Amino acid sequence: MAEDSKTFSGEEKDIIIGRNAVTEALRSGREIDTVFIAKGDRSGSIGLVMSLAREKNAVVKEIDRRKLDAMCGGANHQGVAARAAAHEYAGIDDILARAEEKGEDAFVIICDEIEDPHNLGAIIRTADACGAHGVIIPKRRGVSLTYAVGKASAGALEYVPVARVANLPSAIEELKDKGFWVYAADMDGKPWNEQDYSGKVALVIGSEGRGISRLVKEKCDFIVSLPMKGKINSLNASVAAGILMYEVIKNR
Amino acid sequence: MAEDSKTFSGEEKDIIIGRNAVTEALRSGREIDTVFIAKGDRSGSIGLVMSLAREKNAVVKEIDRRKLDAMCGGANHQGVAARAAAHEYAGIDDILARAEEKGEDAFVIICDEIEDPHNLGAIIRTADACGAHGVIIPKRRGVSLTYAVGKASAGALEYVPVARVANLPSAIEELKDKGFWVYAADMDGKPWNEQDYSGKVALVIGSEGRGISRLVKEKCDFIVSLPMKGKINSLNASVAAGILMYEVIKNR
Repeated sequence: MAEDSKTFSGEEKDIIIGRNAVTEALRSGREIDTVFIAKGDRSGSIGLVMSLAREKNAVVKEIDRRKLDAMCGGANHQGVAARAAAHEYAGIDDILARAEEKGEDAFVIICDEIEDPHNLGAIIRTADACGAHGVIIPKRRGVSLTYAVGKASAGALEYVPVARVANLPSAIEELKDKGFWVYAADMDGKPWNEQDYSGKVALVIGSEGRGISRLVKEKCDFIVSLPMKGKINSLNASVAAGILMYEVIKNR
Repeated sequence: MAEDSKTFSGEEKDIIIGRNAVTEALRSGREIDTVFIAKGDRSGSIGLVMSLAREKNAVVKEIDRRKLDAMCGGANHQGVAARAAAHEYAGIDDILARAEEKGEDAFVIICDEIEDPHNLGAIIRTADACGAHGVIIPKRRGVSLTYAVGKASAGALEYVPVARVANLPSAIEELKDKGFWVYAADMDGKPWNEQDYSGKVALVIGSEGRGISRLVKEKCDFIVSLPMKGKINSLNASVAAGILMYEVIKNR
């Protein structure tokens, strides 16, 4: 994943290294995205780190010790490192409350495993620009709110609430129960500009390589498509998202 | 510039190093984007390299010797290196001929000093998808057809002709003489979806940091704007380009 290759430069500002540093970061209330544990290491205080991580809602990932070495730039990590999030995560309720405060039909973007931080950042930036109320990403797959995403968002991450959910299909069900119509951006759907987008809208954007996953797609109400008139059969994910987002707001 | 910082990694596959290698590459007919000469160096065969470069329409740039060292990863460059283009450049005539062959109103994208290879690549990719006939970039500023651009285009560079012109305002004049309407994407213009885009269209996209330059903007017929409803006052350049490109083709 693009996300992971980024973290292995050993020069990321957002990497916290070592058992005490990670424990303190978790206790401080700072938003921790992911805690990395060297594969197979359960010695000493690692159990404490893992339970703290779960309590604070951080993802715990076991990774190869050599990858951990590279991520930490050779520093003594004692089998533990963590990546801070560039911004706090919101809840879906925060996003809905934002729409309600403004007296607008809610509009959320659901990113189904976007992997490239440039793409997630650009989607968050476009969400700010078009007046969408928030972005939903999955907890376990795809890129999360890393500093690279924050940078690519050109600062929009400070203003657009991003919720991270354990299960996207369940989150979509929850939105549908609240009156949302859910639109998947995919091939072989209705032309993007012939679709009615009135009411509460959730727009689902698939990952760069694989598009929208089957379980997510099954939950969607409509498929909308951009014509592909050339030789390449897809657009950059953030470009496709931008075209559709501005189509949604056109009649608002 | 993003472009230049890329070339200094010393690991670019497209860097050709040394007087003989660069001379042979120029003579072979391979498309050479830029020839780099160490500042102040006019010794021996450098004059020959420079005149060959001009003859083959490559840009010649004098750069600091230490930058040249870094670009060549420490190899013995003898004061000369070159960067191959990831694809041959087309002429504006090639782009217009392509529209004519298809019996379509020509549609070209003009990139005014786009600096990020991801953005230029994504714009070329979107040009392919929406059926635009070509892209025009300036010769001296902004990113050119580097391998990073080719990669970001997801292969579209093979199918979309890209012309490189010495002077963008003159190129715009030429297009206007041929019946084009020229639209600048900028602030304080007509809402993007209220503009008529019939006939031959040239869409001008500004650079990431500075937008459209004054001399280019003065040549444009219309300014079209995307609403910015949030806190950040601009979109990613390739996202903005994508939204407008699909708006242009909507009624075609």
